[in-house]
Amino acid sequence: MAAHPGRPVRDITPNASLHSLQECNNCLVTETPTLRERRRTETWNALHDAAAELVLEHGMGAVSIDRITEAAGVSPRTFFNYFPSKQAAVLGVRDPHLPDCLLDDFDPAGDLVTQTTHLLLAVLRTATPHEDVARRRQLTAAHPELQSLRMHAVEEARRLLAEALTERLADHQLVAAADAPAEELVSLLVTAAAAVLQHAHRHPVAGSRTAGALLTEADVDHALEFTHHLWRNTL
Amino acid sequence: MAAHPGRPVRDITPNASLHSLQECNNCLVTETPTLRERRRTETWNALHDAAAELVLEHGMGAVSIDRITEAAGVSPRTFFNYFPSKQAAVLGVRDPHLPDCLLDDFDPAGDLVTQTTHLLLAVLRTATPHEDVARRRQLTAAHPELQSLRMHAVEEARRLLAEALTERLADHQLVAAADAPAEELVSLLVTAAAAVLQHAHRHPVAGSRTAGALLTEADVDHALEFTHHLWRNTL
Repeated sequence: MAAHPGRPVRDITPNASLHSLQECNNCLVTETPTLRERRRTETWNALHDAAAELVLEHGMGAVSIDRITEAAGVSPRTFFNYFPSKQAAVLGVRDPHLPDCLLDDFDPAGDLVTQTTHLLLAVLRTATPHEDVARRRQLTAAHPELQSLRMHAVEEARRLLAEALTERLADHQLVAAADAPAEELVSLLVTAAAAVLQHAHRHPVAGSRTAGALLTEADVDHALEFTHHLWRNTL
Repeated sequence: MAAHPGRPVRDITPNASLHSLQECNNCLVTETPTLRERRRTETWNALHDAAAELVLEHGMGAVSIDRITEAAGVSPRTFFNYFPSKQAAVLGVRDPHLPDCLLDDFDPAGDLVTQTTHLLLAVLRTATPHEDVARRRQLTAAHPELQSLRMHAVEEARRLLAEALTERLADHQLVAAADAPAEELVSLLVTAAAAVLQHAHRHPVAGSRTAGALLTEADVDHALEFTHHLWRNTL
């Protein structure tokens, strides 16, 4: 597909496969994506770019899936292998996933909130691999209904992570000491992690980026440090 | 206005003025609302009930503000004294407010997260005084765009509370010890409180209510206790 001359260089379409794999610190980071994976990523990006640009220019109602696939240079029947709906393609959001390897380093004896926050961020990134934050904000401003797709992806990321962690923490001393099922403790842990990420979003490290843009590791580390500071002085 | 025979007794329309005043534990709870306050509450409830019922029956597009005011038995020009839009009347949401007295009992030396959680809940309740949770859920399911009104009210409640707390905590030892402005610490505190309320919503105390329904004090206390348990075992 044609490049978008209006987009600045730093917004270059990232490689979605690579992006999610790099979140796995110890397992897949050295693996190069296969040709098939790279092609899937390219097609995903082409469809999302075409959908987003067309809708920004002509409005949601005027843009059909046929028009999107034509602009992206793929066959119409390919579309639904990549996105469940026109809206999902426009926003560039997909079902989050939790790579098998992601919990390999998880240490139940370590700082649970810190680990859960990094895990949640990794899973969330699998849902929105495309990093053109400015365009995404423009799209949700023009089409507020897209926001619910994003919220749905966040909910699903939380659910996936909670499910995986519940298994790991079933016999944890925290659960044993609390008069509540492991599911509830893990749900609280994921809620706490989501709150840390929310704070990182609202309060980026000075100079690192504008509020609301993509989170950096520095923002997350700062929010974690600050959250621990709050609780150490509260308890 | 006519009663809704289909609604169960426990969902009886509460007195919105009273409701928000009762959140002030030590200042206004013994005051009876004035006749003017009671009448405002009645009109608010009548407009919201009419808007919600008409939209549930006929759909959002088919219901005009004139039709709502006619069904509620008030003059059309009265409408905008109560709601900024048809959607706000349908959802029964208004701008949250923070009664002056609400922070009278706030103790900077006490448990900040617990106090902030109760304060946030009190401010949130001023935005949605009407307690017909089942109907509200039916409305947002049918008209997802209403959800953004709710989110806007939550944002505004957080902003109001953060503003009031920033003043109180400007010289707090937490702020002095953190290398960050008071605004950021207070924002984190309010985010932590919101996370506690979110957990209380998702995990009501067994038997107290169904998930997603209106929070009870028991749900909030349980979520607070559990949150403290998590952090005590994490730090």
